[in-house]
Amino acid sequence: MIRAGIIGATGYAGAELARLLKNHREAEVIWYGSRSYTDERYSGIYGNMLGLTEAVCRDDDLKKLSEEADVIFTATPQGFLASVMEEGLLSSCRVIDLSADFRIKDVKVYEEWYKIEHRSPRFIEEAVYGLCEINRDTIRTARLVANPGCYTTCSILSLYPLVKEGVIDKDSIIIDAKSGVSGAGRGAKVNNLYCEVNENMKAYGVLTHRHTPEIEEQLSYAAGEELKVVFTPHLAPMNRGILVTAYASLKKDVNDSEVRDIYLKYYGDEYFVRVLDEGMCPETRWVEGSNYIDISSKVDKRTGRIVVMGALDNLVKGAAGQAVQNMNLMFGLDEREGLGMVPLFP
Amino acid sequence: MIRAGIIGATGYAGAELARLLKNHREAEVIWYGSRSYTDERYSGIYGNMLGLTEAVCRDDDLKKLSEEADVIFTATPQGFLASVMEEGLLSSCRVIDLSADFRIKDVKVYEEWYKIEHRSPRFIEEAVYGLCEINRDTIRTARLVANPGCYTTCSILSLYPLVKEGVIDKDSIIIDAKSGVSGAGRGAKVNNLYCEVNENMKAYGVLTHRHTPEIEEQLSYAAGEELKVVFTPHLAPMNRGILVTAYASLKKDVNDSEVRDIYLKYYGDEYFVRVLDEGMCPETRWVEGSNYIDISSKVDKRTGRIVVMGALDNLVKGAAGQAVQNMNLMFGLDEREGLGMVPLFP
Amino acid sequence: MIRAGIIGATGYAGAELARLLKNHREAEVIWYGSRSYTDERYSGIYGNMLGLTEAVCRDDDLKKLSEEADVIFTATPQGFLASVMEEGLLSSCRVIDLSADFRIKDVKVYEEWYKIEHRSPRFIEEAVYGLCEINRDTIRTARLVANPGCYTTCSILSLYPLVKEGVIDKDSIIIDAKSGVSGAGRGAKVNNLYCEVNENMKAYGVLTHRHTPEIEEQLSYAAGEELKVVFTPHLAPMNRGILVTAYASLKKDVNDSEVRDIYLKYYGDEYFVRVLDEGMCPETRWVEGSNYIDISSKVDKRTGRIVVMGALDNLVKGAAGQAVQNMNLMFGLDEREGLGMVPLFP
Amino acid sequence: MIRAGIIGATGYAGAELARLLKNHREAEVIWYGSRSYTDERYSGIYGNMLGLTEAVCRDDDLKKLSEEADVIFTATPQGFLASVMEEGLLSSCRVIDLSADFRIKDVKVYEEWYKIEHRSPRFIEEAVYGLCEINRDTIRTARLVANPGCYTTCSILSLYPLVKEGVIDKDSIIIDAKSGVSGAGRGAKVNNLYCEVNENMKAYGVLTHRHTPEIEEQLSYAAGEELKVVFTPHLAPMNRGILVTAYASLKKDVNDSEVRDIYLKYYGDEYFVRVLDEGMCPETRWVEGSNYIDISSKVDKRTGRIVVMGALDNLVKGAAGQAVQNMNLMFGLDEREGLGMVPLFP
Repeated sequence: MIRAGIIGATGYAGAELARLLKNHREAEVIWYGSRSYTDERYSGIYGNMLGLTEAVCRDDDLKKLSEEADVIFTATPQGFLASVMEEGLLSSCRVIDLSADFRIKDVKVYEEWYKIEHRSPRFIEEAVYGLCEINRDTIRTARLVANPGCYTTCSILSLYPLVKEGVIDKDSIIIDAKSGVSGAGRGAKVNNLYCEVNENMKAYGVLTHRHTPEIEEQLSYAAGEELKVVFTPHLAPMNRGILVTAYASLKKDVNDSEVRDIYLKYYGDEYFVRVLDEGMCPETRWVEGSNYIDISSKVDKRTGRIVVMGALDNLVKGAAGQAVQNMNLMFGLDEREGLGMVPLFP
Repeated sequence: MIRAGIIGATGYAGAELARLLKNHREAEVIWYGSRSYTDERYSGIYGNMLGLTEAVCRDDDLKKLSEEADVIFTATPQGFLASVMEEGLLSSCRVIDLSADFRIKDVKVYEEWYKIEHRSPRFIEEAVYGLCEINRDTIRTARLVANPGCYTTCSILSLYPLVKEGVIDKDSIIIDAKSGVSGAGRGAKVNNLYCEVNENMKAYGVLTHRHTPEIEEQLSYAAGEELKVVFTPHLAPMNRGILVTAYASLKKDVNDSEVRDIYLKYYGDEYFVRVLDEGMCPETRWVEGSNYIDISSKVDKRTGRIVVMGALDNLVKGAAGQAVQNMNLMFGLDEREGLGMVPLFP
Repeated sequence: MIRAGIIGATGYAGAELARLLKNHREAEVIWYGSRSYTDERYSGIYGNMLGLTEAVCRDDDLKKLSEEADVIFTATPQGFLASVMEEGLLSSCRVIDLSADFRIKDVKVYEEWYKIEHRSPRFIEEAVYGLCEINRDTIRTARLVANPGCYTTCSILSLYPLVKEGVIDKDSIIIDAKSGVSGAGRGAKVNNLYCEVNENMKAYGVLTHRHTPEIEEQLSYAAGEELKVVFTPHLAPMNRGILVTAYASLKKDVNDSEVRDIYLKYYGDEYFVRVLDEGMCPETRWVEGSNYIDISSKVDKRTGRIVVMGALDNLVKGAAGQAVQNMNLMFGLDEREGLGMVPLFP
Repeated sequence: MIRAGIIGATGYAGAELARLLKNHREAEVIWYGSRSYTDERYSGIYGNMLGLTEAVCRDDDLKKLSEEADVIFTATPQGFLASVMEEGLLSSCRVIDLSADFRIKDVKVYEEWYKIEHRSPRFIEEAVYGLCEINRDTIRTARLVANPGCYTTCSILSLYPLVKEGVIDKDSIIIDAKSGVSGAGRGAKVNNLYCEVNENMKAYGVLTHRHTPEIEEQLSYAAGEELKVVFTPHLAPMNRGILVTAYASLKKDVNDSEVRDIYLKYYGDEYFVRVLDEGMCPETRWVEGSNYIDISSKVDKRTGRIVVMGALDNLVKGAAGQAVQNMNLMFGLDEREGLGMVPLFP
C-alpha cells in the first residue's frame, strides 16, 4: 500500500486527490495537510468525505511527512514547494507537485511570468514534466514530477500531434479557453462569490496568464523550435470543466479524416484520450468527474485554418487525476488504477 | 457475472444505471433498451460512455430480454411495466421496477393518484417495496422489487425512526421537498428548458404529487396506523439532489441528543445512511453522485416541534443506486458493491 | 429633486438602490457611501453603472451627508445605524434603514436574537415598520423607517390576510423559505463562493434565524395576540428571489375561491401584490428585478391545512425596491415612481 | 402613440420586445401574435407580465395586423417573413424583422447558409441592415429593417473600427463567441433542457454557423473589399449574454492607447457603446437586461496580434433592444426611448 501525503488537502485540487485516492486500491492518504484547518476533522470541511475518513488536518511538517509517506502531493500556492525543496526530501520520498514551481525549465521565464523568485532552481533540471501521454517513460523513474496545469494539459494535448507533425504553422496558434470556477481555488475572494460569477462570461488575464509560457515550452519541444501562442482564458459559470478552442493556419493540405488519423496515431492507444468521431465536438459535461480528455478538430477550407477542440475536467485530468496517473506510473502500477470513474452526467 | 438489461436506458435514471453498473464487478449491462433511440450507439446519446461501451440501443423485446438477462431494470413511464407484466417474465428473471407501478399496495389509491388503470394488479401483492434499509430481508428473496421514488426515499428514511418510535404526532407531518431538475426526466418539454428552470424556484404539484400516497403508506406501516401528510415538492435550479425539510409536532419531551440516538438506533449500522452530528444540516452537494443519504434534525422547544432534514442524490439513492443496492441484495452480493463512489464535490 | 445618500452603497442592496434610483424621476443619489471602496469610482466596482455615473465612493460622514441629503438609506451591517443614531440626524433628514436595527419593538428580543447590544433604543418607538401595504399611513409621516427584511416581507405579506381574518390557527404556522444567494451579501466568505453554493440546496440558521422574531411580531399584531412560528430559511443556487412556502391549520371551513377572495380584499388594490389565479403557483422568475410579490394558496381538505406561497425579488421588494416605495410615500410621490420595472425573464 | 404588433411574441425575443415596449412612452403593443398559444392569455405564458397586460395571443393575420399597426416586429423562424412579404405590407406599415431573411444582400449566400429558398428576393435590396451605430441615417427612412443577429451585432461592433481603419489584417480575423442559452429559443428540444446545458461548455455549428456570412458581409463593407472570418459559437450555462473574443494580426504598429482612441473616434458619442478603460475586460453581467455593448481590446506585442472583446445582452442589444432602437430611429424619436434600463446585477 502506497502511503500518500497531501499538502494543501483542503483546496479543491487537494480534496479531489482525497476523493480519488479513497477508491485507489494500492494507495491511501495518511496525511491531510492544511494550514488553515489544522486539527479540524477533514470530513467537517469536506462533507462528502463523511463516514469515509476520520482524519484530522495536520499542519505542514515536511520532514515528518516525508518519513511517513511514500509519495507527497503538493497542492500548494506557487512558490511553496520551491521554498522548501531539498535533497533530503527527494531522497526519502517521491514528490508530485501540482503547483507550477518545477514545470518551466528556464527559471527566468518562471520568474518573469510568476513574479516570484525561484528558491530552489537547482531541482528544475531534474523535475519531469508529468504529462503522462507525452513523457510516460521519464515519469516512471522520476523523483520529482511537475504535474501540468489544467489549461496547459488541455491545450497541449489538443495541439501536440498537429505541431509535432508540422501540419500547422507554429506561429499561428491561438488558444481560447473556457474554465469552470473551481480552477480559481477555494480562497475567499469577492470575485469568486456565487453572485459575481453566476450568469456571467468574461475573459481574464488576457495576454498575461501564467499558463502561456508552459504551453509554449511544451509545444516548442514538439515543434523542434521556439513558438509563441496567444492564450486567452475565460471564466464560465460552472463548477468543473475546461474547453479549449484552438485555431491555427494549416501548412499542409489535409482533410478532416486525415487529421483524425494523425490524432489516432498519437492517441489511438491512450486510454484517457478519446479522439471523437468526425463532426462531434467535445463538451465538458461528457468528461466531468473523470480523467478523460476528449478531442476533435475541423478543417476550414475557406480560410485555410483548423479549429481544434479539447475538453477535460480541470480537477481530474487537469490536476488530481493526472497526479494519480503520474503516481501510478512512478510506482509501477496500472496507469488506470483509481481512475476508472465514469463521467458523471447530468 | 450478472447479466442486466435496462428498459428505458436513455432516460436519466436509466443512464445512471448504466454508469453505476459499468463499475460493478459482478454485473454487466447486456441490453440497453430504448424505443426513441433504437439502433443508435449508446455512447452517441450519452457521451460520457464514449470508449466505455460500443453497445447500440435495442427496441423493447421483453421476452427476448428475459431470456438473455438475469435481472431487468425498468426505468420506464408509469403504467408500462404493469401493462406487460406476466408470470413468464418473473419466472425467467428478476425485475427491479424504477416506476411506481408496483409500489402501492392498494390499487385504487394507485389509480386515483396516477390517473391510470393498473393492468396487472395481481402482481402487486408479490412485489416488495425496495427500501433496502427497511425491507432488507424480504428484498433478498423477491422476484419483483418496486424501487422507491426519489422524494419518497428521502422523506421516508428521514422520518421513519421518529414515526416508528412514536416521537412525533403522526397527523402533524409536513414535508417540504426541493429537487434538482434531473428528476423531471429527459423529455423535451418547454417547462424543463434551461432558461425556464435556471434562476428560479417554484413549488409544483401542490397537494397532488403522486409520491404522497407512497410516503403515507410506508409511514403508516411504521406508525402502525394510517396517517396523512402534506407533501410539497419544489424545483430547484440544479441537476441533482433532493433536500427534504420535514416538520412535525413532538409527542415526547426529547432533546437533540436523544433524537440523534434514535436515529443511530435505526441507522447506526447502515452504510448508506449518514446521521450527522448535532448542529449540522444535510446539503445536497455532500451526497452528489453517491448512494448516501444524510440526515439530521433539530428540536424546537419554543413551539414543540421538530425539524427533520434529509439529503440524497435523486438519481442514485433516489433511483439507480438504490436499484443496484436492491440487485445486490437479491443476488446475495455485498450490498455496497458498485456503490463505492465518493460524492463528487465541487 | 430628492437628494439621496446611500451608506453601504457597494453591498448588493446598496447597489440595487443605486440601480433603482438611477431611473427615478424625482430622486438622485448624491452620495455613494462605502468604507471598503472609499475614493474608488463606483462604476469600477459595479460595472453595470458604467456611463451612468462618474461618482466616487465616499467614506462615512453622517453629519456631512445629513446636511447634503434629504434622505439617507442605510444598507449597513446590524448595529451600525443604532450606534450612530441621534436626534440631530433625524431632524435634518429622513432615514430609511435597511438593517434590522429598528424593526423590533422589544429591545430585549432584538438583543437576544442578534447578539448585539442596541446602542440607541430610545429611537425604536418612533421608528415605523416600513411594510408599505400594511403601514402605509404611518410611513408617510415617519422620520425613521425600518425597512423590513427580505424573508419577512415575503412571509408576512403571504400570511397577513389569513392571520388577520382568523382563518388559520395562529399557533400552527410553519414557514419554509428558499432564497437566492444575493441575500447573503457581498462579503468574501468561503461559504458563498460559487463552487460552494452552485448545485446545492441546504437549510441554514435552522430555528435561530434572526428574521423569526420580526415575522412573529408583525403577525402577532395581525392576530391581536402573540404567536410563534417555525421558520426555516434555505439557500438556493440562484442570484435573486425568495420563495416562501407556508403551512398552517385551518380554523374555518374555506375553499380555494373563498381564500382567494380574502387575499383580494386586502391586496386587490395593491399595485405591487399580484394575487394569482387559483391553481397557479408563484415562481421567483416571474418577479425577478421587479417590486412585485406574487401570492397564491391551496386548501388541503385531506389534512385540514392550507399551503400558502409567496415569491419576491429579495433585492427589490425584499430590500431596495421597498425602500424606494417607502421613500415615495414619505415624500408624497406616486408610490410606484421608479418602480415600474417589468420583471426580467429569462 | 405608435401601435406595434409582434409576430412571434411568445418566443424569447418576442417576449423581450413585449417587456421593453411596456416601458416605452411612445409605443404600445396592440397585437401579441403567437401560433402556438393563440387565444391564451399572454400573461399566462409569460408570468412576468401578470398585471401588466390582459392581452390574449392572436393567430397570424398579417393583413389585419398591418391595418391596425404602425410597425410590425417579426420574431419568427427563418423564411417566414420572406414567404409572406409583399408590397402591400410595406406600404401600410413599417416592418422590423428579427429573423435573417433580409439581412444578406446576396440571395445565393443566404440560400447556401440557411438551406432555404428565399421566397421574396425582390425586397432584399430595399431592406436596410439595422445596425444603428453604423447605418443610422438609412434606417430613419427605411420601410423594412433587417435587425442584425445577436452574434453578429457583437462581432461587427467589436471589430468595425479596426477593420475600417485598416489596423488589422482583414484575412486574419478569428471570432470566438460565447452565448447564453436564451439565444437557442424556446423550442422544446432535448439539447436545450436544463440538465443538458447546465454545467457544460461546448462549441456548436463549428464553421457552419449562419451568422458567419452576415459578419463577413458587413465587415467587408468596412474593409472595402471582401474578407472571410473564422467564427465559432459556444453555448455557456447562463440565460443571457454574448461575449465575443476576437483575434487578428496587426497591420500597424499601435499600442493600447492608440487603439482605444480609434474606438472612441467611432463610438465616443454612442450612448449604447461603452468603450472600456484600458485594462478592463467586458463581462456579460455588466450589460444584462440593457441595450449596452461593452468593448475593449489588448495589443500583444509578442505575437503582433490584437485581442478584441465585446459583450452584450443577446436578447436586448442582440435582438429586441436593437429592434426598439431601430423603431425609435424610424419614427423620429429619441433613440434611447424605452431603453434606459440599468443593467441588472447580480
